[in-house]
Formats: sequence, structure tokens, C-alpha cells
Amino acid sequence: MDIAWTGARCPEPSMHHRALAEARQAQLTKPAGSLGRLEQLAVDLAALQHTETPHVDRSPIIIFAGDHGVTAQGVSAFPSEVTVQMLANFVGGGAAIAVLARELGQALMLVDVGTLAAEPVPGVLTDKPRRGTRDFSLEAALEPGELAHALGCGQRVVQRIHDGSDILLLGEMGIGNTTCAAAIVCALTGGDPAVIAGGGTGLDDAGRRRKAEVIAGALRLHGLADGLGAPDKVLCAVGGLEVAALAGAIIASAQNGLPVLIDGFIVSAAALAAVRINPSCRPWLIFSHRSAEQGHRAVLDALDAAPLLDLNLRLGEGSGAALALPLVRMACALHNGMATFAEAAVSKRG
Amino acid sequence: MDIAWTGARCPEPSMHHRALAEARQAQLTKPAGSLGRLEQLAVDLAALQHTETPHVDRSPIIIFAGDHGVTAQGVSAFPSEVTVQMLANFVGGGAAIAVLARELGQALMLVDVGTLAAEPVPGVLTDKPRRGTRDFSLEAALEPGELAHALGCGQRVVQRIHDGSDILLLGEMGIGNTTCAAAIVCALTGGDPAVIAGGGTGLDDAGRRRKAEVIAGALRLHGLADGLGAPDKVLCAVGGLEVAALAGAIIASAQNGLPVLIDGFIVSAAALAAVRINPSCRPWLIFSHRSAEQGHRAVLDALDAAPLLDLNLRLGEGSGAALALPLVRMACALHNGMATFAEAAVSKRG
Repeated sequence: MDIAWTGARCPEPSMHHRALAEARQAQLTKPAGSLGRLEQLAVDLAALQHTETPHVDRSPIIIFAGDHGVTAQGVSAFPSEVTVQMLANFVGGGAAIAVLARELGQALMLVDVGTLAAEPVPGVLTDKPRRGTRDFSLEAALEPGELAHALGCGQRVVQRIHDGSDILLLGEMGIGNTTCAAAIVCALTGGDPAVIAGGGTGLDDAGRRRKAEVIAGALRLHGLADGLGAPDKVLCAVGGLEVAALAGAIIASAQNGLPVLIDGFIVSAAALAAVRINPSCRPWLIFSHRSAEQGHRAVLDALDAAPLLDLNLRLGEGSGAALALPLVRMACALHNGMATFAEAAVSKRG
Repeated sequence: MDIAWTGARCPEPSMHHRALAEARQAQLTKPAGSLGRLEQLAVDLAALQHTETPHVDRSPIIIFAGDHGVTAQGVSAFPSEVTVQMLANFVGGGAAIAVLARELGQALMLVDVGTLAAEPVPGVLTDKPRRGTRDFSLEAALEPGELAHALGCGQRVVQRIHDGSDILLLGEMGIGNTTCAAAIVCALTGGDPAVIAGGGTGLDDAGRRRKAEVIAGALRLHGLADGLGAPDKVLCAVGGLEVAALAGAIIASAQNGLPVLIDGFIVSAAALAAVRINPSCRPWLIFSHRSAEQGHRAVLDALDAAPLLDLNLRLGEGSGAALALPLVRMACALHNGMATFAEAAVSKRG
């Protein structure tokens, strides 16, 4: 499979609609700037959606799931079987993201791009090149064809939904994927594994040290310790199938002019890989929250991203993006629905 | 009028239901603690509402409006006439809080407890002891009877709605009320007006310095510069009618076992006064956001409060509380709706 599509240029946000939205914000019945981040958010969305009246009513949530060979090194507090068990919990409606999708009235789309499941999980779209990655502490996690399949999976799913959508929410499930994401971030930024590797689903300090050592060893093995790795090489060496699918979905979404609401550490690591593959996708990304996972700060810094929420979340599944969606929705409602000073006959400042 | 009612003890949160809620959180299909602040929020609400399944479906928003004599000193970027004009904009649906109330599907109740309006504003409940406060840079803003009326107004409004409500959102409108709130905060905490007085609706640096000087002069005039003022004396000296009504509503809400979602700088200043009047109301307060108004940090510190959002908002009107409500709602939905490990047959940590 070919990954040349990932380099195709994304459309530009509309400067014309940005200017119209900024002019509208200045006329609304409030002190200039008093809605803070929400004003900028509405203006950014107006530019991205090429409209004076941005909307995020249709906000599907796509979860990519995959397993990780590196769990053999004891880097996660939960066993790999939990990945597929949680997929069933998503389908059954009992997982956090399933509850939030119901609360928000949004579709939840589940994609198995590489779990260990031998058979398709009912209610889950299966599109995977293999069951789990190889243990990247011993060998490359993915072959180039497998990476291309996973990136393409992200694109294929986005092709199915972008036409009827206003914004895309992405999430993930994969025991071991904070280890994978931390390795990717280190390989793309030169960050120190001891700083980037966090507690994941609940490691203690000794577990976190071991995780950092496993990552450091893998970076040396694959010649990635200098932080200068090409993103496709990095994704093959230490990547995950769901992380690659997320990167593919992010690029495809931006290429189709659909903004993406980015979740926490894993999705942000995928976003960093996506931006390194295709920098023109960066304007299409809106960052939902700062995770408690300690490496997230470094990823956000590398992306020059200022997230909306900071609630000490570290669940993943797209839950942070889902929790931020009402803010985006209300930013649009305020922008579109507030009266101007002239309409409301309110005096402007003296 | 009597204000003895303000001292009546508020009920205690239920330790029994707190323990049940904590036990439930530990069983939900997520790593322990991974929903961060939302877990604590759900547990707190369970304790406050004396239930295993907290809800905030019925969340009325009450806005108290008043005018301020101190605006004669040029402390606001907007003229006093804007207070009543904005009340009409609330009724007409064009103001930020009106848009948010619609978006959230919540009732918006408007109370004129002391604007300059000579006639009742259609769609607004009028319950005021006088039109605007006196200029507190020259004399006491309120006489004790006027303060008692305003505190009682807050209580009367809460009596009308608490039975059918899950949580109360409070907001305000009043040109000049950041000056009033800053003076209250300084008088209750000993804070420096130069630190506490912020830009309000949009003062420049010179305007902010002038505002701080007006406050410092008033504190000296009223003998409140030591930060040790009794809260009722402070509210008479430098208070506002809407700020007093907010304090009364906060106390009455807590006395009736109804949690309050606190907005930004003005409502927080009222909450500080309420807690100084009746410390047993403190557990009933949930803080929605950290405002861009520079004095808010000092108020939050004085109340040992950690707000949910930090979005550089400085609009007031209850808009920050409204913007945080979906987070509270989703915290409840997650707590009530997620499956346990046993229900979902998901393996616990290894």
C-alpha cells in the first residue's frame, strides 16, 4: 500500500470568514474579549468551516483500538485482554466514552485496527493488517505495509463520515499505548523517556521507571535516540496500529476540511506524528484538554497547543474530547446567537 | 428587616452517600482516578444531594441586577444605563447568559434588586429597597435595612425555586460591580486594592489605577483598610444590592440543601461574604471557573476553591457557571451510567 496520500496538502482556513467572524465578535453585547478562549474558538471554527456561523452539531466520535507487543515487558498495569473487553464495553454502552456519546447525542464508531481479537467483535468495524504490534523492545513494531494499512484505515473511516460532519472527535483503546505514544514522542522530539513516560493506567514509580527504561532501550535499538526520526520510520519502529490509524484519520480529516477535536496523550502523540508527516494539517486541530499523563505537556508544547480543559483526566477513549465538546458547541451558540449592540440597543463603552 | 436567618446552620453533606459514591467510583470500568476532577465532583454532589446517583438536570439560573453609585467616580468603561439595557437584552434572549440558558435548556430568572430603573422592567422580577447604591467613596453604600432587604431578596427568590431544583446557578449584572466586589474582597481579606482591582469591562492601566485609588480611599473612609471588617458592616459600607442578594441566595440555597455553582469574580466575592456570614454554607459551593479579572485568584484562595474551568472569561452574568454546567452534568452521567468491572466482565489490573 501507498502512503503518498498522507502528504497531499490540506485546504487553508478562510481568512475572509475569519475576518467576518472577528468583526461579528466585536459587535456582540459583551465587553470586547470577555468571552476569552471561546471567542477565539468560534473565530477559528468560522475560518475552518468557511462560514460566518460555525456549528459542531454533527460531531461523530471514532475510537481506534489496537494491541501492543511491548506489553510483554510488563509496562502496563492492566493485561492486554482488557483492550478487547473494553471494546465490548464500548458496544454495550458501559464505558466512559459510550456514556458521553449518549449524553452528547453523538454517534460512536468503533474500529479494530489491530487488537488481538481473532474474530471480529460484534458492533466493531474490523480493518486490521495484523493482531497487535510486535514487541518494539526487540524488533520493529510494524512493517511498512502494515503501517500503510493502518494509516489507510484512518483515511477509510474518515471518508465514510466527513460529508455529514461538522467536527471529528477521535479516541483510542489499547493496553500498552501510553508506552507506544511515549516512545513516538521521544523519537520525534528528542524528549527523555524518564520525563515523557507516565503512569498510564496506574503504574507505581518503579513501574514507570521500568517503562522509561524499556522505551530508552528501544530508541537505542532503532537508532531513534536523537529525536530526529522521520515520522514513518518512527511509526514502524515503535508505533501502534491505533496510533497510526489516528494519524491517518487526522490527516484525512484535515484534507477533507473537517476540524478535529484532539483528546489526550495518545491522540496528541498521533497528532504530532500527523503534523510531522503533513504540517498543513496543523490548523485543523483543536486541543480539548491537558492530560494528567506526564508526557502530555511535552507533546502540547511541540505542537504549540493550548487545550481548553485541565481536569486531571487520564482515561483516553476520546473522553477528554467529548467533555470539551459542549464548550465548543456553546462557543458557536454564543457567536451565532448573541445580539449585537445595535440590535439590542445597548450603549457602547463611554 | 431582620438578617438573623442568615446565620441559621446549613445541613451537612452526607458522609454515608459520599462513601457509597466513592465505592462506586472504584468499581467503574476505568483506571482508578482517571476521570480526575470529575470523580470528585460526582462524589461531592452525591454527598450534597444525599443520593447514590447525583443529578443536575434541573439547574435554574438566577441573575440579580443592581446599580452602583460609585460609578460617579469614573470606575467603569461602560455607563450605568447599560445595566438596565442589558436586563432587557437578557429578556430578549440576545445576551450571553440568555443564549447559554437556551443551549442548556434551563430557566433564566431575572431579578432587579436595585437597578436605576424607575419602573419595573418587563420580564424581570422587581424586589428592591432603592434604585442603585450610594457612592461608597463618599458615604456608606447601603443602610442596614436596605442590606437586609437585599439579602432577603436572595432568600425569597431561592424559596420559590429550590424544591424543584438539583443545583442553582447564580449570575449578576451591574455596571460598577467589579469595583464594589473588589472593595468587599479587600475589606474581608486585607488584600491590596492595587492587586485586587481589575480591568472590569475594559479599563486601561490608568483607569485601573484610578479604580484602585477610589477603593483604597473608601476603605480608609469606612475604617475597613485592616481587612478585618464584619461582613454585614462591609456590605453596608461598600456593598452592592445585587452582591448582597447573591450572598443571601447562596446562604438560603445552602440552608435548603441545594448546591450552588458559583460564577466568576462578583459571585465569588458574594460567596466570600456569604461564607464569612455563615461558614456552614461553604461545602455547598462548587466553583465553575477562574476569571481573567485579576482579583479572582485572591477570592478563590480565600475560599480554598479550585474551579473547573480556566478560559480567560470575564463577562459575568453567570456565563462561567453556565459554561461549566455540562461538565457537572457529564460527571453525574459517568458516575451513574458507567458499567462496573463486574457488569462489563472487564479484567481488573494485573
